[in-house]
Amino acid sequence: MKLWDKGTNEVSKEIETYTVGRDRELDLLLAPFDVYGSMAHATMLEHIGLLTKPELEKLLVELKNILGVIKAGDFVIEDGIEDVHSQVELLLTRKLGDTGKKIHSGRSRNDQVLVDLRLFIRDEIRIITELVGELFHTLNDLSKKHKDILIPGYTHLQVAMPSSFGLWFGAYAESLTDDLQLLLAAYKIANQNPLGSGAGYGSSFPLDRKMTTELLGFEDLSYNVVYAQMSRGKVEKSVAFAMSSIAATLSRMSMDICLYNSQNFGFLKLPVEMTTGSSIMPHKKNPDVFELIRAKMNKLQSLPNEVTLITTNLPSGYHRDMQTIKETFLPAFAELKSTLEVCTFAMKNIEVKSDILDDPKYNDLFSVEEVNRLVNEGVPFRDAYIQVGKTIEAGGSTLNKSVNHTHLGSIGNPANDEIENKLKNVLSGFGFEKADGAIGKLVK
Amino acid sequence: MKLWDKGTNEVSKEIETYTVGRDRELDLLLAPFDVYGSMAHATMLEHIGLLTKPELEKLLVELKNILGVIKAGDFVIEDGIEDVHSQVELLLTRKLGDTGKKIHSGRSRNDQVLVDLRLFIRDEIRIITELVGELFHTLNDLSKKHKDILIPGYTHLQVAMPSSFGLWFGAYAESLTDDLQLLLAAYKIANQNPLGSGAGYGSSFPLDRKMTTELLGFEDLSYNVVYAQMSRGKVEKSVAFAMSSIAATLSRMSMDICLYNSQNFGFLKLPVEMTTGSSIMPHKKNPDVFELIRAKMNKLQSLPNEVTLITTNLPSGYHRDMQTIKETFLPAFAELKSTLEVCTFAMKNIEVKSDILDDPKYNDLFSVEEVNRLVNEGVPFRDAYIQVGKTIEAGGSTLNKSVNHTHLGSIGNPANDEIENKLKNVLSGFGFEKADGAIGKLVK
Amino acid sequence: MKLWDKGTNEVSKEIETYTVGRDRELDLLLAPFDVYGSMAHATMLEHIGLLTKPELEKLLVELKNILGVIKAGDFVIEDGIEDVHSQVELLLTRKLGDTGKKIHSGRSRNDQVLVDLRLFIRDEIRIITELVGELFHTLNDLSKKHKDILIPGYTHLQVAMPSSFGLWFGAYAESLTDDLQLLLAAYKIANQNPLGSGAGYGSSFPLDRKMTTELLGFEDLSYNVVYAQMSRGKVEKSVAFAMSSIAATLSRMSMDICLYNSQNFGFLKLPVEMTTGSSIMPHKKNPDVFELIRAKMNKLQSLPNEVTLITTNLPSGYHRDMQTIKETFLPAFAELKSTLEVCTFAMKNIEVKSDILDDPKYNDLFSVEEVNRLVNEGVPFRDAYIQVGKTIEAGGSTLNKSVNHTHLGSIGNPANDEIENKLKNVLSGFGFEKADGAIGKLVK
Amino acid sequence: MKLWDKGTNEVSKEIETYTVGRDRELDLLLAPFDVYGSMAHATMLEHIGLLTKPELEKLLVELKNILGVIKAGDFVIEDGIEDVHSQVELLLTRKLGDTGKKIHSGRSRNDQVLVDLRLFIRDEIRIITELVGELFHTLNDLSKKHKDILIPGYTHLQVAMPSSFGLWFGAYAESLTDDLQLLLAAYKIANQNPLGSGAGYGSSFPLDRKMTTELLGFEDLSYNVVYAQMSRGKVEKSVAFAMSSIAATLSRMSMDICLYNSQNFGFLKLPVEMTTGSSIMPHKKNPDVFELIRAKMNKLQSLPNEVTLITTNLPSGYHRDMQTIKETFLPAFAELKSTLEVCTFAMKNIEVKSDILDDPKYNDLFSVEEVNRLVNEGVPFRDAYIQVGKTIEAGGSTLNKSVNHTHLGSIGNPANDEIENKLKNVLSGFGFEKADGAIGKLVK
Repeated sequence: MKLWDKGTNEVSKEIETYTVGRDRELDLLLAPFDVYGSMAHATMLEHIGLLTKPELEKLLVELKNILGVIKAGDFVIEDGIEDVHSQVELLLTRKLGDTGKKIHSGRSRNDQVLVDLRLFIRDEIRIITELVGELFHTLNDLSKKHKDILIPGYTHLQVAMPSSFGLWFGAYAESLTDDLQLLLAAYKIANQNPLGSGAGYGSSFPLDRKMTTELLGFEDLSYNVVYAQMSRGKVEKSVAFAMSSIAATLSRMSMDICLYNSQNFGFLKLPVEMTTGSSIMPHKKNPDVFELIRAKMNKLQSLPNEVTLITTNLPSGYHRDMQTIKETFLPAFAELKSTLEVCTFAMKNIEVKSDILDDPKYNDLFSVEEVNRLVNEGVPFRDAYIQVGKTIEAGGSTLNKSVNHTHLGSIGNPANDEIENKLKNVLSGFGFEKADGAIGKLVK
Repeated sequence: MKLWDKGTNEVSKEIETYTVGRDRELDLLLAPFDVYGSMAHATMLEHIGLLTKPELEKLLVELKNILGVIKAGDFVIEDGIEDVHSQVELLLTRKLGDTGKKIHSGRSRNDQVLVDLRLFIRDEIRIITELVGELFHTLNDLSKKHKDILIPGYTHLQVAMPSSFGLWFGAYAESLTDDLQLLLAAYKIANQNPLGSGAGYGSSFPLDRKMTTELLGFEDLSYNVVYAQMSRGKVEKSVAFAMSSIAATLSRMSMDICLYNSQNFGFLKLPVEMTTGSSIMPHKKNPDVFELIRAKMNKLQSLPNEVTLITTNLPSGYHRDMQTIKETFLPAFAELKSTLEVCTFAMKNIEVKSDILDDPKYNDLFSVEEVNRLVNEGVPFRDAYIQVGKTIEAGGSTLNKSVNHTHLGSIGNPANDEIENKLKNVLSGFGFEKADGAIGKLVK
Repeated sequence: MKLWDKGTNEVSKEIETYTVGRDRELDLLLAPFDVYGSMAHATMLEHIGLLTKPELEKLLVELKNILGVIKAGDFVIEDGIEDVHSQVELLLTRKLGDTGKKIHSGRSRNDQVLVDLRLFIRDEIRIITELVGELFHTLNDLSKKHKDILIPGYTHLQVAMPSSFGLWFGAYAESLTDDLQLLLAAYKIANQNPLGSGAGYGSSFPLDRKMTTELLGFEDLSYNVVYAQMSRGKVEKSVAFAMSSIAATLSRMSMDICLYNSQNFGFLKLPVEMTTGSSIMPHKKNPDVFELIRAKMNKLQSLPNEVTLITTNLPSGYHRDMQTIKETFLPAFAELKSTLEVCTFAMKNIEVKSDILDDPKYNDLFSVEEVNRLVNEGVPFRDAYIQVGKTIEAGGSTLNKSVNHTHLGSIGNPANDEIENKLKNVLSGFGFEKADGAIGKLVK
Repeated sequence: MKLWDKGTNEVSKEIETYTVGRDRELDLLLAPFDVYGSMAHATMLEHIGLLTKPELEKLLVELKNILGVIKAGDFVIEDGIEDVHSQVELLLTRKLGDTGKKIHSGRSRNDQVLVDLRLFIRDEIRIITELVGELFHTLNDLSKKHKDILIPGYTHLQVAMPSSFGLWFGAYAESLTDDLQLLLAAYKIANQNPLGSGAGYGSSFPLDRKMTTELLGFEDLSYNVVYAQMSRGKVEKSVAFAMSSIAATLSRMSMDICLYNSQNFGFLKLPVEMTTGSSIMPHKKNPDVFELIRAKMNKLQSLPNEVTLITTNLPSGYHRDMQTIKETFLPAFAELKSTLEVCTFAMKNIEVKSDILDDPKYNDLFSVEEVNRLVNEGVPFRDAYIQVGKTIEAGGSTLNKSVNHTHLGSIGNPANDEIENKLKNVLSGFGFEKADGAIGKLVK
C-alpha cells in the first residue's frame, strides 16, 4: 500500500525496488516519533473540530498501542508498505476503519517526515550531549590526575617546549565544549515545529500550529510553510556540521594516541586487551580501536559535504532526492554514539608513562625555560642564550629541568574547573527537559 | 627580517618564495587586529611588571600611530619582512629600540596569529550580520508587499498547489534566521581569548590572561594552552560552516530566480540594467548576476571541506599547514559580503508578474483546494474528487481559483512579524557592543 | 578465530564489536576473489618449493569446493571468524589440517585484501562498462530516432537557439565515452598485482611474483612492496573518481529530465507506470525515479572526497583506517550498477513531444538563424538584425522556422557513428578477455 | 566594450564589478591559446569561403603580432574590456576594421572559452608530466643510491618489519606512475576539439570542424555540440581528479618526511638552509617546506569537490556559473608546478641517516625474519617462535639483523628499472609532439 496509490497506477517492479531503496529499514528509527507527531496532530484536529472527541480518544489509545509495539521491538513495516507513515496509518485503519484515515487531514507525508526527523534529531542530540559529557569528564579527570606528568610539546612535529598530560587530556576536554556550541545551534534549528506545512504550501484547514508546537515541546515554529519544506536537507546539514566538529576532536585525539603509542614515542600504552595482533608478526599490539575511531570520525566529517552535494542547486519545493539523505544521515548517529562510548571506555583504560622527559633527546625542550631563568637571575640574554646552547651541545645533563608555569591554562594551572564551567554553560542552553516533558505528557 | 632569523640561517631562495606564499598580501587584513592585540599584551606586561609605565606609554603611542597608518591605507609589509607581526615589531623597534623588542616577551607568533584571526573574525561576523539583516528586511518587506500574488507551488518540479510571492520571499527571510544560529555558534567559539598560549605550551612568565581577555572584550578564554593552539583550523572551520549555511540559502534562492526568470516560467523579470547580453543572440537578457551568486555561494560551500582536508589527521601542536588555510579562508569574507550586498541590491530591483495563475496549465493547482471545498460543503470526498477531476480534464475554466489558507505560516498569514522576531532574538545573542566597547576603550 | 590470535589475548567485547564493524557482511563480496588469489598463491608456492605437488592438488580441490559453495550463495563467515580470509583458511584447515595452514606462508592479510579488492574491482569495472555500453546504445539510438525533433536550446536557462532531441540524447551518449576514459585509467591502476607485498615490506621467501601476475591475468605488477601497500585507498580513490564521472553524467541528464517533464517545459513524458503519486494531490505523476537517480549519483560524487578524508595525512604503512573505506566503497558498485540498469530501462520508455517549437514563446530561438539567412541572401547585417527584431516583436508568426545546420556534430549531422566509434575505441583499451581468460584457466 | 554590448544596455556598476570578478586577471593565462584558436578558426573560415584569402592573410599577420606582444609579456586587457576574447578582437578591429569583426562568424565566446581552456590544459599537462618525470627520476635515483640502508617498516604506526630507503623512495616514484594514468585520461578527455559548437547549439554556417581539429593538433573532436558545451566543468573536473592524485602522493610523502625528520624518528635530516626557525625557541629547525607541500597538496585535493559543487544539478546548456570554476582551477596549475619543482629540489638535498636500526627499540623488526630463518634451518616453527621471543625479551643483542629479501619489489630487488619502464609506457600515451607540431606549424 502506498498513501498515493490510486488503484490504477502500476509502477514497474524494477522502478519500485529502486525507488523504495532502504527507506523501510531506515524508517524504523523514526517509528516512535511518527507516533508522537500523529498524537499531537490528532489532538489538534479535534481542537479545531475535524475530529470528534470519541474519535480522538480511540486514535490516541491505538497510537499508544502502536508505541508499545515499537518500544517492545516488535514493530515491522510490512511487505508492500512503503514507509513508516503508511504502516502506522495502516495499523490505525485496520483497527479503527475510517477514523484511522481521518488523521491524514491537514497533513502530508512531507510535513510528517519533517516532524519525525526533527523529533528524532532532538532525541539523538540529547543522547549525544550525554555521551560527550561522559567523555569530557573522563578527559578532565585524567587531566587532573596526570597534571604533573610532563611530556614533550611539539611544533612542526619537532621537540619544542615542555607540555604535560594535564594539558594534553584537558585540551580535548575543552575542545568538546566548543563542539557543543555547534550542536546547540543545530538543536535550535531542529527544535522548531514544521507540522502544518503540508507538502510545503500549507493547508486550507484552519490548523492550530501553535498547539502542536506546544504539544510536541518545540521551542518555536518553522513558520513559513515554504521554508519549513525547504529546511529539509538544511536541518540535516546543520546537524552534520555539529557532528563533524565532534568527529574532528575525536579524530585528532586518536591520531595523537596512535603516534604516542608508537615505539618511537612511547608516551602511552594501551592495555593488551584493547589491542589486536598481526597474522605474521608475533610482537604486534596494534591500536586498531583508535585507528577505527580516527577513520570513522574522518568519514563522518564527509557528511556535510555529502548532504550539500545532494541538495545543491535544487530549486525550492520538495524533491524525492531528499529521501536519499536519510541513507547516510540516519546511520551517522549510531556511528557517533558508539564511537563516543568506545572512546570513553578506551580512555579510561589507557596507561601513561611518567618518566618520558628523562630521555636526553628531549633536553632541547628546556632551552627556552633555562634562558628565561638565567635572564631572571640577572644574566644578560645573549650570554644566557650562549651558555644554554653550550650545555645542550654537551649533552644537557646539568640542565635544570624543572618547569614553573603558573598562568591560567598553563602546565601549573590547567583550568579544569573553568573548562567544566564551560561545559555546564553550553549544556544549560539546550533545555531538553521542556522537550522531554511535553512528550512525556503526550504519551502518558 | 624574520622573527626567527638567527643570522647564520640562509634559507634557499626557492624555498623562501614557496614558503612565504601569499602571507604578506593576506596579512594586511589582519594588521589592525595585530595592533589591538599588541596594545592589550603590552598593557598586561606592564601590569605584571615586565614593562615599566613609561615603556608602556611609548609603546601605546607608537601602536596608535601604526593604527593610524593602517586606517589611512598606508601600511605596507616591507620587502624581506615575513608577515604582519614582524612588520609591526619592526616599526616599533625602529622608533623605540629595545623597548620595541620587549613586547614579544611572553608571547609567540602562534598566539599572535590566533588572536589576530579571532579579532578579525569577530569583526567580520558583525558586518555579515548587518548585511544578512539588510537582505532579511528586503525579503520580508517583499513578502509583505507581494503577499497576495499567487504563484504555482511545485513538488518534484511538478505543478502541485498554490503558493504565493509572500511565501516565497518570506521563506528565504526565515532561512536566514536559522543560518544566523550557526553564525552565532561560530562567533561564540571565536570570541575567546587565545593570547597567552604562546607556541601552544604557555609561558614561564606570570601572564594575566584574564586582563587581556577583558581588554580585548572577549567573552571568555581558550583556557588550556594546548587547546588554544589546537583550535587553529577548528575556529576557521566553524566559521566556514556558518558561512556555508548562508551561502546555501543564497544559492537556492538564485536557482529559483534563474528558473523563474526563464521564459518557461516567467514569474520574475530582472530590469534590463541587471542583465547581460550574448555575443551572437540579440534577444538575450541573461541573469548573470544570480548565476554568479549561485556559483560563488556553491564554491563557498566547499570551504569547510577544504579546511578539513588541510587539517585532518595532523597530530596536535602547530604545523605550518595552518598558514595555508588563510589563503581561502580570509578571501571568503569579502566574497560573502559582496554577494550579500549585490543580492540585496538585486532583490530590491526585481520585478514580479501578477497574473501567473491565469495560464490554464496551472489549473491542476486548485484540485486539492476544490476537493477540500466541496467536502466542506458536504459533498462526499470520492464524489468531490471525481467531479474535480472532470472539471480539470474539461479545461478547468469553471474551477474556483480562490485560495483561503488562514493558518499560521500559510498564504493568508505568512507570519512576517514572527519571523522578524526570530531575527531579533538570534541577533541579540551576539553582543557585539561588548567587543566594540572594549576595542574602542583600548584605542581611544 | 582471528589470524593473529595468540591465545592469551582477550580483546574486550566492546572493542571487538566496534572494530569488527560491517567487515563480515561486506567481505562476502570479496569471497570468490579471495579464492582466486589463494589458488594463484598456492600454485606459486609449489613452484618455489614451499608446497609439495600433492599438497597443492589437495588445496586446489578444496578451494574449488569453496568456490562452488560461494557461487551457490551458501558461503557464510561464521560467528567469531573475523573476515573472509580467516573463513577460507578455516575451511581449508578443517579439511586439510596443516596443509591448510601452509597457504599463509609468504603472504599477509594485507596483500590478500589488496589482491581481493583489485580482482573485485576488475570484475565490477567489466560489468559497469557493459551497463554503460547499454545505456550508451539506448541514448545513441534515441538520438538517431528523434534526430529531427527540434527543442529549444537554452543558455543561462534562457531560450537561446534551436536544438534537437537528436543532439540532446546524443550529448549524453558522448559524455559516457569520456567517462570511460577515467574508468579505463582506474582499471589500469587496479589491474596490477600486489600479491607478494605481504604486510607492505615483502617477504624473505623467494616469491615468484611474475607467476602470480600471470596466473591472475594482471597486466602488470605493483612492484615496490611499500608502494603496493600504499596503494590501498589510492586505487579506491581512482575508481571512485571514475564512478563519480559517470555519476555526474547521469545526474545532469536526470536534472534535465525532471525539468523537461515539468508542466513548464513539457518536452518529455514518463509513462504513468514510471511515476509515483501524491498522498494529497490526485493529479500528481512524479518523476521519482529520475530524482533518485540524480540524488544517488550526487551522493556517489561525494565518494572520492570521503576516501580522501579517511586517508589524507596518514603516514605510509598500513593503518586499520583503510578497512573503513570498504564501508562506502564496496556498496557504491551496486548503487551504480542498479542506477545504470534503471536508467537504461527508463530511457527506453520515455516519450518525447514533437511539436514543442510551435509555442510562440520559442520564436526568439530563430532570431540568429533568420539574421544569418537574410545576410546570406544579401541583406546587410544591420538591416537584417532590425527586420528580424521587428518580426519577433510583432509575434513572429511569419518567421522562417526551418533550421539548416549541416556541420559535423550539429542538428543536421549529430555524428552518431563517430560517437559510437569513440565508445569502441575506449572499450578496446580494457582487455577484459585477458583477465577473464586467466581466471577461467585457474578455476577450470 | 563587451561583445554583447547593444549600445543601450547600461549594466549597473555594482553588478558589473561583481560579475566581472577576476576574469580579466585570469584570462591572461589564456591569451596565447585564444590566438591559436583564432588562427585556426580564421583559416577554416577562408577554406569554406567566409573570408577571402587576403582577409585571412591580414588576420594571420595581425594575430602573430598579438602573439608576439603576449610572449613579450606586454599584453593587457584594457579597462572596460570584458575578457581576453574581446581584447583580441578589439586589437584586430583597431588594425583591420571590418575584417577584424569577421572572425567572429560561426563561433561564440562559449566555444572560444572551451578551446582556449583545452589548449591551455594540454600545455599545462605537458609541463606537469615533465616535472613529474623529474621528481620521479630524483626519487628513483635516491632509491638506487640508498638501496641498502635499512629503516623500520611500520604498520599501525607500530614497528613491524625491516624496510629500506630503497623501498621508501622507490614507492613514491612508482606512485607517480599511477598518478600519470589519471593524467593521461584527463589529457585524452581534454584533447578533443570543441570549436564549432558555438553557444552549444552549433551554427548554420558550414563549418569544417575536422579542419580546425587538424590545425590545432587535437586528437579527436567533441562531436555533439550540446555535449561540447556540457563538457565545461567536466573537463576541469577530470583534470582536477588527476592533479588531486599527484597531490595525494606528494602529501603523503611530506607527511612521512615531517615524521621521519622529528627527533622521535630521526631518519632524515633537512639541510639547515631548507628549514626555518622559531621566534622563541633557538634550537628549532622546522621542516616548513614539507609542511607547506603537504598543506597545499591537501588543499588541491579539494578541487574536484569544489568543481562538483559548482556544477552539480545545473541543467544542460551554458550557465555563467562555469566562469567561477576558472577562479580556483586556473591557479591550481601554478600551485602544482611550483610544488613539484620545490619538492624535487628539496628531495635532492635531503640527508638520510644510515645506522637507524642500531637502536635496540627496533629489535622487534627482526622477529619474523629470525623465525623464518630458524625454520629454514630446520628448527620447528613453534620452537623458533619461542626462541626468538626469548632473545627479544633479553634485549635482542644476539639477534641476527641481516635481511635477505630477494623477490621482485622487495628490499633486495626494488625493481627500479621496471618502475622506470612504467613511467616510459604511460608517458608514451600522451603524444605531445602531435599537439606541439600542429601549433608550431600554425604560428610559423
